[in-house]
Amino acid sequence: MKKIAVILSGCGVFDGSEIHEAVLTMLAINQQGAQYTCFAPNINQHHVINHLTGEVSEHETRNVLVESARIARGELADINTLKVDDFDALILPGGFGAAKNLSDFAFNGDKCQLHADVLTACQAFAKANKAAGYICIAPAMIPLVYGKGVKMTIGTDTETAAAVSAMGAEHLDCPVDDVVIDKTHKLVSTPAYMLANNMVEAASGINLLVKEVLAMA
Amino acid sequence: MKKIAVILSGCGVFDGSEIHEAVLTMLAINQQGAQYTCFAPNINQHHVINHLTGEVSEHETRNVLVESARIARGELADINTLKVDDFDALILPGGFGAAKNLSDFAFNGDKCQLHADVLTACQAFAKANKAAGYICIAPAMIPLVYGKGVKMTIGTDTETAAAVSAMGAEHLDCPVDDVVIDKTHKLVSTPAYMLANNMVEAASGINLLVKEVLAMA
Repeated sequence: MKKIAVILSGCGVFDGSEIHEAVLTMLAINQQGAQYTCFAPNINQHHVINHLTGEVSEHETRNVLVESARIARGELADINTLKVDDFDALILPGGFGAAKNLSDFAFNGDKCQLHADVLTACQAFAKANKAAGYICIAPAMIPLVYGKGVKMTIGTDTETAAAVSAMGAEHLDCPVDDVVIDKTHKLVSTPAYMLANNMVEAASGINLLVKEVLAMA
Repeated sequence: MKKIAVILSGCGVFDGSEIHEAVLTMLAINQQGAQYTCFAPNINQHHVINHLTGEVSEHETRNVLVESARIARGELADINTLKVDDFDALILPGGFGAAKNLSDFAFNGDKCQLHADVLTACQAFAKANKAAGYICIAPAMIPLVYGKGVKMTIGTDTETAAAVSAMGAEHLDCPVDDVVIDKTHKLVSTPAYMLANNMVEAASGINLLVKEVLAMA
């Protein structure tokens, strides 16, 4: 049974992992006969967003690893314990947590950096030429992991596409039910909620991404 | 298109809605051609559990409606605005939130009570003889909504089954991939994570529950 590491970034679309994308990813991995293990960095979230009002919840602090445990039903580990040899592939769901906690793309755009532990984990899969899948806004991290010329998508948002292009990636527009594959890097990306209007649309691209990742794993 | 009201109880298995069950319910509703609207009570959670350690997070307070908004991507309403005439059916996912926030079943067992707004909403569907589905531990609320003799399941846990039997329900053992249907009350229940070992198992019963609820809606 193939083993997939899943990196989470909190619990909630506006300050953490997009919950639907994370669950759909885990479901697709299970349904396609593989198993997942969840990881997250043991750091504070950039901020906490009240998901009812959309406003920043001042004076509130939450930890990315602790909140990610909600999605993982308590079964997950600190990303700095992730050993690439134990896994066949890596998948990162989206949500603003990928752009606020795992990286600072939401604030610094094409000048962004990845959290050191996240960069180490993602680059380990790249260096081992093991398959990886990046969903929604998580592909904004791809140029920093794989370097210039890597093929990827964040959907059709021109501003975001311009930023990843400025970081050296080759951005390809992609509809919600499809994926972009960089065969050289064994790398798959899909827009999900960058474009999805509902959960069925998000699932269509995520199911295909998991299929393609497993095929290369 | 049939409209389903979904009642959430927070965001996380140990102090709120079981996230997988909530997302799988919303996915099944979408996949089966219906649409959902999420609701939750505007009350504080009974407590906050650190889902990494399993321990109570002392001095931390979270609101059920605000945290449920994480699962609903911000699109949900206070349960006291739920109008039964606007919907064809009702579904409640599980998680300890159903037994700690929507009711106090986790603490008071067969002496439990439902939060007044939750009772009003659930009884409105019962009185209108509209279909309803209760998942995982949420069926522990069924006797207080439907009264004595109602047929339901929480799986095979003997202690929990004894408690709901003491409350007047007729408990029927049920495997994870099946449902118990009370045709008189148009009521469906399934064990999900009361028994499920993984997300595929949980999805099997939830998909069937949604199918049976929609068939009666």
